[in-house]
Amino acid sequence: MRVLITIEYNGKYFNGWQRQKKGIGVQEVLEEALSTLLKQNISLTASGRTDAGVHAICQYAHFDMDSSFDLKRLPFAVNTILSEGVRVLSATQVQPSFNARTSAHRKTYLYKLYTRKIISPLREGYFANVPYELDYSKMTEASKLFIGKHNFKGFCSEGSSVTSYEREIYSFTIEKHDDEYSFYITGNGFLYNMVRRIVASVVEVGKGKLGLSDIKHALKEYEKKYITKVMPACGLYLLNVQY
Amino acid sequence: MRVLITIEYNGKYFNGWQRQKKGIGVQEVLEEALSTLLKQNISLTASGRTDAGVHAICQYAHFDMDSSFDLKRLPFAVNTILSEGVRVLSATQVQPSFNARTSAHRKTYLYKLYTRKIISPLREGYFANVPYELDYSKMTEASKLFIGKHNFKGFCSEGSSVTSYEREIYSFTIEKHDDEYSFYITGNGFLYNMVRRIVASVVEVGKGKLGLSDIKHALKEYEKKYITKVMPACGLYLLNVQY
Repeated sequence: MRVLITIEYNGKYFNGWQRQKKGIGVQEVLEEALSTLLKQNISLTASGRTDAGVHAICQYAHFDMDSSFDLKRLPFAVNTILSEGVRVLSATQVQPSFNARTSAHRKTYLYKLYTRKIISPLREGYFANVPYELDYSKMTEASKLFIGKHNFKGFCSEGSSVTSYEREIYSFTIEKHDDEYSFYITGNGFLYNMVRRIVASVVEVGKGKLGLSDIKHALKEYEKKYITKVMPACGLYLLNVQY
Repeated sequence: MRVLITIEYNGKYFNGWQRQKKGIGVQEVLEEALSTLLKQNISLTASGRTDAGVHAICQYAHFDMDSSFDLKRLPFAVNTILSEGVRVLSATQVQPSFNARTSAHRKTYLYKLYTRKIISPLREGYFANVPYELDYSKMTEASKLFIGKHNFKGFCSEGSSVTSYEREIYSFTIEKHDDEYSFYITGNGFLYNMVRRIVASVVEVGKGKLGLSDIKHALKEYEKKYITKVMPACGLYLLNVQY
């Protein structure tokens, strides 16, 4: 039986999703707990990796289960075995053809930052700190430039092997509450560090250090020339995946 | 010169505000950093203590300074010395008669909880978890019973020596967003564990385990009979003090 689970994790406890040589990945912690619970070797396929320090409000992963363990009970049972920082929220049966990675249509990421000059002890590890005043309306204008299909080579860090840099962004909105900004970005897929580079470039526009034309240029010419900054991992959350 | 500082701290790093025999208090960390910076023995008087694990979005404290250290620069200078978990947000000169404890007119506390059955790794240490569905409108009704002057002996934990149990609550509102509840309570002062006992009693009403008459009774008869629960410290934030 193929099972799809949803998972919440706190990125500060893990060295990313994937099994790591250094540190511990969310995947191995979950695979070990599920293997212990179900008395079989469990191998997980997630919607995609998340990098070290990145959080997930809702990550998805599938696995194949030999037994007929009650799926309603599964989250509670596996959570008693799991270490701090990660919890299984739900488990449902899916078709054998379903694949948590390749069946994913849309992903939404949330990026959170605050703009105070003094670091906030209550937000450390959950928000990025940008100690500058930002121009909210300029940033909103910048965010609109990303909507649609683009070659995102200029917004991708080295180190991933992909065949195409084309991705489509369906929506990109920015909410402001006091000194906090939340960036919501939905697309059909994201390249390595793409969200963190997009948000960094929009923040540079908010500071007045980049213009809208720089963003347009980087999207057209796939140039990294102006897009040199990457936001820190702690502000990034995988919010949801649509199948 | 008498100086008033505002302070943000993350309760999980400290064993409360006060100097402690066990663990470390926020007060001593701040006093040591300020004494090092100002090259004099600094003694702080806060608006009030906070218990172990309780957070402060904005705590106030005063001290007397011999030197003429630039107060605009003071927060940045002392923050470079301070350990993780606490930051000075501002410093201003006040009258010599001003006292951060006795001049406080109103205090506002925020209590945060979520109601999911599965613990949230992203909210641990910042929210209490109440794994029950709560009746929001019943809780709002209950919150209104606390407004005004009451004898809060029934909502106070043993261990503090006070001469009067009378306190006045000016406002008490509850906000709900998805599975998260925020309780905002403003009063002229609060007894030991009073906010955590008030919120616990309102949550019991939300669960249907206490009725409005139980709250009324406890407020009139100063009886602890029904008010036996105390919410955990991690959901409590000192939000502001008015002078």
